[in-house]
Amino acid sequence: MSLLIKGGKVVNADKSFIADVYCEDGVIKKIGTDLDVPSDVEVVDAQGKLVMPGGIDPHTHMQLPFMGTVASEDFYTGTAAGLAGGTTMIIDFVIPNPQQPLMEAFEQWSSWAARSVSDYSFHVAVTWWDESVYADMGKLVSEHGVNSFKHFMAYKNAIMAEDETLINSFTRCIELGAMPTVHAENGELVYHLQQKLLREGITGPEAHPQSRPPEVEGEAANRAIRIAQSLGAPLYIVHVSSEEAVDEISRAKREGLRVHGEVLAGHLELDDSVYHNKDWASAAAHVMSPPFRPKHHQRALWKGLQGGVLETTATDHCCFCAEQKAAGKDDFTKIPNGTAGVEDRLMILWDSGVNKGRLTENEFVAAVSSNTAKIFNIYPRKGCIAEGSDADIVVWDANKEHTISAKTHHQNVDFNIFEGRTVKGSVDTTISQGKVVFANGELNVVEGAGRYVKRPAFPTVYEAIEKYNELNGPVSVDR
Amino acid sequence: MSLLIKGGKVVNADKSFIADVYCEDGVIKKIGTDLDVPSDVEVVDAQGKLVMPGGIDPHTHMQLPFMGTVASEDFYTGTAAGLAGGTTMIIDFVIPNPQQPLMEAFEQWSSWAARSVSDYSFHVAVTWWDESVYADMGKLVSEHGVNSFKHFMAYKNAIMAEDETLINSFTRCIELGAMPTVHAENGELVYHLQQKLLREGITGPEAHPQSRPPEVEGEAANRAIRIAQSLGAPLYIVHVSSEEAVDEISRAKREGLRVHGEVLAGHLELDDSVYHNKDWASAAAHVMSPPFRPKHHQRALWKGLQGGVLETTATDHCCFCAEQKAAGKDDFTKIPNGTAGVEDRLMILWDSGVNKGRLTENEFVAAVSSNTAKIFNIYPRKGCIAEGSDADIVVWDANKEHTISAKTHHQNVDFNIFEGRTVKGSVDTTISQGKVVFANGELNVVEGAGRYVKRPAFPTVYEAIEKYNELNGPVSVDR
Amino acid sequence: MSLLIKGGKVVNADKSFIADVYCEDGVIKKIGTDLDVPSDVEVVDAQGKLVMPGGIDPHTHMQLPFMGTVASEDFYTGTAAGLAGGTTMIIDFVIPNPQQPLMEAFEQWSSWAARSVSDYSFHVAVTWWDESVYADMGKLVSEHGVNSFKHFMAYKNAIMAEDETLINSFTRCIELGAMPTVHAENGELVYHLQQKLLREGITGPEAHPQSRPPEVEGEAANRAIRIAQSLGAPLYIVHVSSEEAVDEISRAKREGLRVHGEVLAGHLELDDSVYHNKDWASAAAHVMSPPFRPKHHQRALWKGLQGGVLETTATDHCCFCAEQKAAGKDDFTKIPNGTAGVEDRLMILWDSGVNKGRLTENEFVAAVSSNTAKIFNIYPRKGCIAEGSDADIVVWDANKEHTISAKTHHQNVDFNIFEGRTVKGSVDTTISQGKVVFANGELNVVEGAGRYVKRPAFPTVYEAIEKYNELNGPVSVDR
Amino acid sequence: MSLLIKGGKVVNADKSFIADVYCEDGVIKKIGTDLDVPSDVEVVDAQGKLVMPGGIDPHTHMQLPFMGTVASEDFYTGTAAGLAGGTTMIIDFVIPNPQQPLMEAFEQWSSWAARSVSDYSFHVAVTWWDESVYADMGKLVSEHGVNSFKHFMAYKNAIMAEDETLINSFTRCIELGAMPTVHAENGELVYHLQQKLLREGITGPEAHPQSRPPEVEGEAANRAIRIAQSLGAPLYIVHVSSEEAVDEISRAKREGLRVHGEVLAGHLELDDSVYHNKDWASAAAHVMSPPFRPKHHQRALWKGLQGGVLETTATDHCCFCAEQKAAGKDDFTKIPNGTAGVEDRLMILWDSGVNKGRLTENEFVAAVSSNTAKIFNIYPRKGCIAEGSDADIVVWDANKEHTISAKTHHQNVDFNIFEGRTVKGSVDTTISQGKVVFANGELNVVEGAGRYVKRPAFPTVYEAIEKYNELNGPVSVDR
Repeated sequence: MSLLIKGGKVVNADKSFIADVYCEDGVIKKIGTDLDVPSDVEVVDAQGKLVMPGGIDPHTHMQLPFMGTVASEDFYTGTAAGLAGGTTMIIDFVIPNPQQPLMEAFEQWSSWAARSVSDYSFHVAVTWWDESVYADMGKLVSEHGVNSFKHFMAYKNAIMAEDETLINSFTRCIELGAMPTVHAENGELVYHLQQKLLREGITGPEAHPQSRPPEVEGEAANRAIRIAQSLGAPLYIVHVSSEEAVDEISRAKREGLRVHGEVLAGHLELDDSVYHNKDWASAAAHVMSPPFRPKHHQRALWKGLQGGVLETTATDHCCFCAEQKAAGKDDFTKIPNGTAGVEDRLMILWDSGVNKGRLTENEFVAAVSSNTAKIFNIYPRKGCIAEGSDADIVVWDANKEHTISAKTHHQNVDFNIFEGRTVKGSVDTTISQGKVVFANGELNVVEGAGRYVKRPAFPTVYEAIEKYNELNGPVSVDR
Repeated sequence: MSLLIKGGKVVNADKSFIADVYCEDGVIKKIGTDLDVPSDVEVVDAQGKLVMPGGIDPHTHMQLPFMGTVASEDFYTGTAAGLAGGTTMIIDFVIPNPQQPLMEAFEQWSSWAARSVSDYSFHVAVTWWDESVYADMGKLVSEHGVNSFKHFMAYKNAIMAEDETLINSFTRCIELGAMPTVHAENGELVYHLQQKLLREGITGPEAHPQSRPPEVEGEAANRAIRIAQSLGAPLYIVHVSSEEAVDEISRAKREGLRVHGEVLAGHLELDDSVYHNKDWASAAAHVMSPPFRPKHHQRALWKGLQGGVLETTATDHCCFCAEQKAAGKDDFTKIPNGTAGVEDRLMILWDSGVNKGRLTENEFVAAVSSNTAKIFNIYPRKGCIAEGSDADIVVWDANKEHTISAKTHHQNVDFNIFEGRTVKGSVDTTISQGKVVFANGELNVVEGAGRYVKRPAFPTVYEAIEKYNELNGPVSVDR
Repeated sequence: MSLLIKGGKVVNADKSFIADVYCEDGVIKKIGTDLDVPSDVEVVDAQGKLVMPGGIDPHTHMQLPFMGTVASEDFYTGTAAGLAGGTTMIIDFVIPNPQQPLMEAFEQWSSWAARSVSDYSFHVAVTWWDESVYADMGKLVSEHGVNSFKHFMAYKNAIMAEDETLINSFTRCIELGAMPTVHAENGELVYHLQQKLLREGITGPEAHPQSRPPEVEGEAANRAIRIAQSLGAPLYIVHVSSEEAVDEISRAKREGLRVHGEVLAGHLELDDSVYHNKDWASAAAHVMSPPFRPKHHQRALWKGLQGGVLETTATDHCCFCAEQKAAGKDDFTKIPNGTAGVEDRLMILWDSGVNKGRLTENEFVAAVSSNTAKIFNIYPRKGCIAEGSDADIVVWDANKEHTISAKTHHQNVDFNIFEGRTVKGSVDTTISQGKVVFANGELNVVEGAGRYVKRPAFPTVYEAIEKYNELNGPVSVDR
Repeated sequence: MSLLIKGGKVVNADKSFIADVYCEDGVIKKIGTDLDVPSDVEVVDAQGKLVMPGGIDPHTHMQLPFMGTVASEDFYTGTAAGLAGGTTMIIDFVIPNPQQPLMEAFEQWSSWAARSVSDYSFHVAVTWWDESVYADMGKLVSEHGVNSFKHFMAYKNAIMAEDETLINSFTRCIELGAMPTVHAENGELVYHLQQKLLREGITGPEAHPQSRPPEVEGEAANRAIRIAQSLGAPLYIVHVSSEEAVDEISRAKREGLRVHGEVLAGHLELDDSVYHNKDWASAAAHVMSPPFRPKHHQRALWKGLQGGVLETTATDHCCFCAEQKAAGKDDFTKIPNGTAGVEDRLMILWDSGVNKGRLTENEFVAAVSSNTAKIFNIYPRKGCIAEGSDADIVVWDANKEHTISAKTHHQNVDFNIFEGRTVKGSVDTTISQGKVVFANGELNVVEGAGRYVKRPAFPTVYEAIEKYNELNGPVSVDR
C-alpha cells in the first residue's frame, strides 16, 4: 500500500519547500522531486496546496463520564471528526475517580478508545494520592507509554488535587521523566463564588464566568509554576484562557523555567458575551471551564501565541447535547461543562492566525502539531513531514472556503460554538497512517484502525532537568 | 502633668516645620511657637533635633509560646526595649491553637500584656475555622477593638490556614470592616522541602533558607492577593522578604488593589550568608521565617520601600536565647524561629534609609509610624504630631552615634542580629503618654502603664470597598 | 475680613473629621469646635457637607498661542471657571518659542496672568538649549519661584526637546532643586506617522489617534524615566494616557525611583470612539495630545490612580472654539490640539472615583489637590485644611446633582467633552483667599485678585536626592 | 571529494538521532545508516561524539577600522580561529562612515573578506541617511544578498543613528523584506556620562561601565522596540547585556512582537569586577560596549537564553592588542572597544550551558547555529544537518577537556577574556564545505576558500508581517 502526495509545498515548523512525499506502510519513505515510486502508487494531487503534518489535539475528552452524564462524542465519532478537520491524532485523558486505581481507569479508557479511527494517546489524571498511585504512575510510564500526568486544581469535592498531591505527583514525575500538567483554576475560590452566586439567586449561565474570574486562573497558574520551580519540574498548563495566566507563563519563561502553555481555539475567538444570550440553550452550550472571557483576554491570548509564550493549541473537545446541558436549567453549576471543536481547530487557527498575519504557515504547523509532538515526546514520529515519520498528513487548501455549522460538521453534538463562520483555508485531503481517510468532503474511516501511541518518558529536556536538579542539590541556592 | 518639647523640628509624614509641642494629660495639646504653657511645665530641649511620632511596630511576639518553648522577651521587657529605641507602641499577635476559641486566646494574651509599659494592641490569628470562630471574630471587632486578623499560610500541621479558611475569614473580615493579614509562605512546599533536606542528611541552619526559597513566598503572596481580589477584600502582607513577593505586591497595586506590604529591618539589612556561619549558635540565632535572603533581595526590598510598594516596617520581634535555639541542634526544623529588633528598628531605618538618601525624613516617619497607624486605623491618634494626638513622641538626634550590641541593648535576649553596627542617628528622648520614659540612655518606665489600644473597624478605605463590592455584584465583571 | 465654615466634615488627604474652619486675612486661622470667632464673621453653613482644600490643576494653558491661533480661554475667564468647579489654583505653562529667552517668555505670560481671579503659578518649558537657557533657569528658580521645568518630547519642528536638551535640562534641574516634567510622546514617530497618514489620504480627525499610538507614549515615558534615572533626577510625567505609560511608571516605582504620573479627567473617562463621530466638528473638538484611547486604557488609568501609580489629576485645559478647530478641516495635523475641563475635573473625579468605590474621599483630595501641592512644594500652604494654610477651600455637596454642558459651563469655549453627563457630587461653595467666590451657582470674582504663587526649590525629596547622588558618585554602581 | 562522518549522534535543533552523514561537493548528500558511499570516501569517526551543524557567529568585526586603529584580527586569521572553535560561518559588519556611500563600504569590506577561510556574510550598517542610502539599501538587498541592516544607537559624534534615521531605515527594511538590527545604548547619555566622569578626573577603565549603566541599554532597547512596533517591523537586538534589556525583549514577546535578542558568550560569563583589576592592561583588555555587568545580569541573561527570550549567541569578536588598548591610557573613552571570542563561544556555551543543565544539546545547537540561520534566512542551507544543507559540520566531543588561553588560541590577539578556564566539551573535528579543516588540534585551511553567502530577503516571517501591516492600515487600531 503506497501513496504519493505530488506537487505540494511541504510545510514543517522550521521550513517550507516544494517536494513530493512518498508514503509506504503508514510511514513517510521519501521526500523529494522525481522520486522513484511504484507504478501502482495512489496519487494525491497537491499542486498549489500545502502538505503539512496532521494536527495533534492534545486535549480531548471522548465519551467522558462527567457531572452525571457521558460526553456524546465517543472515540469512534470523535477521531473521525478530527480527521475531517485535519487532526490525525488526539491525546485524551484517563480520569480516575478519587480512590479508583489508576491502572483500572487506564484499562477502562483503553477499552473505550479501541474504536478510534485515528491514532491516539492518553494523559492520566492524578486525582488522589497514596502508595498505589505512586506505583501505578511508574507502571504507566514504564509499561504503557504514558509520559504526562494531569492535575485538576479545580472541581472541589470531586477530582481536585490539593497542593500536597501536586507536590507528591510532580516529584514522582521527575523520578519518572514525565510531564506534569495542570488545569489551573483555584477550586476553593470557584466553589465559594458558585455558592455565593446561588445564594444570591443568580442561577443562569451568566453566573458561570462570574464564578470563575480570571484571577482564579492566574492564581492557580502561578501556584503550579512556583511548585514546579521549587521542585525542579517542568510544567504544562492546559487551556490558558486569561491575560493573567499568560502573564504568569511569560514571567516563568523570563525566569528560564520550562513551562508550556496550551490555548484553545474557542478561547482565542469567543468572548463572554455568549453567556448573556437570551436563549438559555445557547448560553448553556458555551459553558466550559475556564469560561470564555472579556475581549481583552483574546487579544492577550493571540499575542501570547504569536510571541511564543503559548506553544500549543487544543480544543478540550468535550461534547454535551442540549438535553444534557438542560440538567443545569435551574443551577448553572449543574450544566455539564464542555464544548466541541476537534474538527474546527485547524480552520480557525489558519483563518484567524495565518490569514490575519499573526502566524506564518510554519508557526501554524508548530502551533497545531509540532510543538505538541515535541513536548509530549513523539517527535519526529509525529509532528513533521520527514522520512521515517508516520504518514499522518493533511493536504491544506489555503483558498478553500468553508462554513462551519453544527448542521454539517461530523462532530456528534448538536451545537457548534463557531456556527456560521466562513473560513478561508481548509482541509483538502487527510491522510492517516498513509491512507486517505478524508477527501472531497467524504470520510473513509475504519473503526479501530487507530493505534494507541506510546510516548516514551525522559524527553530530551530531561537531560537538562536532571543535570540542573543534581547540581542544585535539594534546592537551588541561586534565588 | 504637662510637658513642653521645645525648639525642635516637627517631622510628620507629610511635612516638617519648626515648632514647640505642648503635651498635657498624655495628649498633644498645642503646637506652635510662643505657646502659652504652665510655668511648671517639664521642658525637653529639642533644639537641633527632630520631633517625630513614636515608632509603631506592627509585628511583635512577646512571650510567645512557640515550638515547644516561650519567647524570652515578655510584654514588660519588650515594650521597655521598644521605648529605648523610640517605639512607643506595638501590635502583637494573639495566636490561638487550632480548636482553641479565639476569645479564650485573646483573654490569655490580654492578661500577659497587662504588664506592658507602652501602649499596645493585638492582631488575632485565625488558625482554624468553625461557627465559633466566625462569631468570635465579630465579638473581637465590636467589643474589643480588634480590626485585623492574621493568617499563617505556613506551619503545616500546626497553625497553617488552608485556602478554605482564608476565604471564610477574608469574607468575614469584609463583613466586619477588618483587615486580613497573611504570613505568606506555601506551607506544603516548606514541609516537603524540610523533609527532603532532612532525608538527605542536611540538618543544620544552612538548610533553613533552602527549605523556604523565595518562590515559596512569592506563591503565597500571589495566592493571598488573588483570593482578596476575588472577594473584594483589602490585604496586608507581613514581613515581605523577597523580590518575588515585592513583585506580586507591585503588580497588585498596578491593578489598583488595596494590598499593603510590611518589611522587617532585618530583611532589609541582612543576607543569607548568616546561615553559613561556622558557629552553630550564631547561624541558629538568625533562624526566622521567612529567612534572610541572597543580597539581590535586599536591593529589591529597599527599592520597594522607596517606591511605596512596601509601606510599613516592623521587626517580627520574637526572642529565643541560645539555649532555646539549641533545641534544633540536630534538626534545623526544631530551631525556634525568631529574631529580635523592636529596639533597633528606627536606628537601622534611619541609618540605611535617610543617611543613604533612600528616604526623606518624612518618608522615614511614614515608614516607621504613620503608615501603620493609617492602615490599622489608629491615625491620627497615633502616627502623627498633631493637636489631639496621643503624646507618643520620639525626639531624634540625627547626629548621635550608637553602636548596637546584645551587651548593651535592653532586649531580653542574648543575641543581636545587628551586633557591632554603629549607626548615626538615634533616640534622644522618648515620650510615652506625655511622659519622658527614656532619656540620657536611661529608661524610666512603669509596669502596666501601657494601655490596650482599641482599633475601630471600618477604616476609611472601607467606604470605597463597600461601594465597590456593592456595585460589582457578587463578583466584578470588568476582568 | 473673616469667614467661618461651620459644621462640615473636614476632609484632608490623610484624615477626615468634623470641625469648623475659621479663616482670616486669606488664611485658615483655627480649626475645631466651639471656636472663638468675631461676631461679625461671615458664616458658610457646611452641615452635611465636606470641607476640602480647593482643587489645584497643575496643567492648564490659558490664552496659549498655539498652532497659529490663541486659546479662547484667558486667565480671567479660565481661573473663574476653575473656581466655579472648586479649583482654586492652577499651574499654567510658560512656553518660550525656540530661541526665545526664557525670561522674556516668563514676563509675557506673567503679564497675561495678572488678570487671574484665583491664585496661579507657572511651570516653564525648556524648548531649546544654550548658555542663556541655563542661566535663565537659575534666575527663574532663585528669583521667581519656578521649581519645575517642562519638556515636550513631541511637536517636531516646533517645541520638541531632543535627548541632549533633556539631559542638559534635567542636570540643571538637579543643581537647582527643581522638578523636570515631560510631555511623553516620541515626536519623530508622531511626525512620521502623520506624514504617512496624510500621504495615504487619511486627513480627518480619525487619523489623529492613529498618528499617536500608545507605544509612542510608552516609549517616551520610558526614555524620560531612564534619563532621569541615569542622572539621579526626579521626574513628573504629565497627562499619562495609556496603559503603556502607566506600566512604565509602575516599573519605575518598583525600582524605587521618584517618578510621578499625572492623569487627565478626560483620559480617564473618554475613549477613542469620539474621533469617529460623523460630525467633523465634534470629532475635531476632541483632538488633543495624547489622544483619547481605546477603552482598556481607561481601565488601566483608573487602576493606576487607585493603586498610587498615578498621583495627580489635571485637565490640560486648552480651549479652541469650533472656528479655530476648523483650521484643520482638510488636514488633521492642523487642528489646534486641546480640550477644556478646568471646571469639570472635581465633579468627574468624584462621580467616577468616589461614587464608584474607586477612591475614598481622602484619596480624592489627594488626587485633586494635596499630591500636586506636595510634589510642587507648596504644601501645606496649599493642598490641605490646616491652621496656617491658605484659605482656598471647596465646600462639597456629595448629594448635589449637576449636569455638565457647554451651554451652562463657565468655560470660554463652545464645547464640553463631558456634555450631558449628570454627576452626583458637586460644589456647594468655593472659597478663595478666604472669600466666597462661588455660591448658589453664582461667581463673585475680581479680576486680578489672583496672586502669583512662588514655589520654592529643593522640596523635601531633594534632601534624599542629594544624598543619594553624592553617595553614588558620578553614577551609581549598584545596577 | 566526499566525506563520511560515521557513527555519531546527529544533533539538530529539533531532534537527535544516531546516523552517518555523507557529504559530497560541499553539501550533505545522505543521512542514515548503511549508506551507499564511494569506496574512496574519507571517513571521520564520530563514534561517541555529536555531529552538529557548525556554529554561526552573527556578530564579528574582522579588521575593523575603529577608534583610530584597526582590529588585529583579519578575515583570514579570524575565520580560521572560528573553525578551530567549531564556528563555520561568520556574519560580519560593513560599517560606512557617515556620508560614505553604502555600496562603497560594502565593496571595501568585500575585498578584505575575500581572504576568509570559511563562509561569511555581511550585515550593513546605516550610519547616516539620504536618498542614496535609501537606494543603496535596495541594491544591497536585491543584488548582493544583504538582508539585515545594523543601527548604532550609541557612539555620538561618530556612527550613531538618530531616531529619524531609525524610522527611515526600518521603514525601508519593511519595503525590502530585511531585518533591522540595533546596538542598543542611548548614545546621548553615554556621551554625557563620559564627559562627566572625565571632568571629575575618573579616567581609568573602571569608568567605562559607569559611563554605560544598564538603564542606558534598557532605554535604547525599548525605544528600538517601540519604533519597530509602531512601523510594523521585526527587530533584532545585538549583544543584549543587561537584565533591563532582557526585560524589554520579554515584554515585546509578551506583546506578540517579532523581536529577537542576541547574547555574547562574554556577557554570559564575566562580570564587571574585571574593570577593577589593578593591572591596567587587563582592565582595558575587557573594555567593550556594552560593558560587562554586575553579577545579577548574568543570571538574567542565562535565564533569558533558557526561556527563549534570547535566541542567538555571538561574540562581537573585535580584537585589539595591548599596545592598541594603550591609546586610552589617560582617557578611558579612547580605549578601543572590543574583545575576542569567535574561537571560544561554543566551548563556553556547552560548558556553562549544557553541562550545567541550563540547555539541552538541541537547545545548544539552536543557540549557537540554527536560530541565527533562521532569523537571517539561510536556513536550512546553514544551521542544520539535513540532506541538501551545506556540509558545515562540527564533530563535538562532550568529554574532551580544553583549557582556554591566549597562549594557545588561534585568535590573533594577545588576550583572552576566558584565560585559564578549563571546559569539558570541545571540538573534535570541524568540517567546512565538506572538507576537514580542523582535526587533532590542527587547522588545515586555505586562504580565500570561504564563500560570501547571500542571504535572501523576505524570510518567511515577512509573509505574516506583510499581511499584518496591510490589514492594520497605516497603523494598527487595536492598541
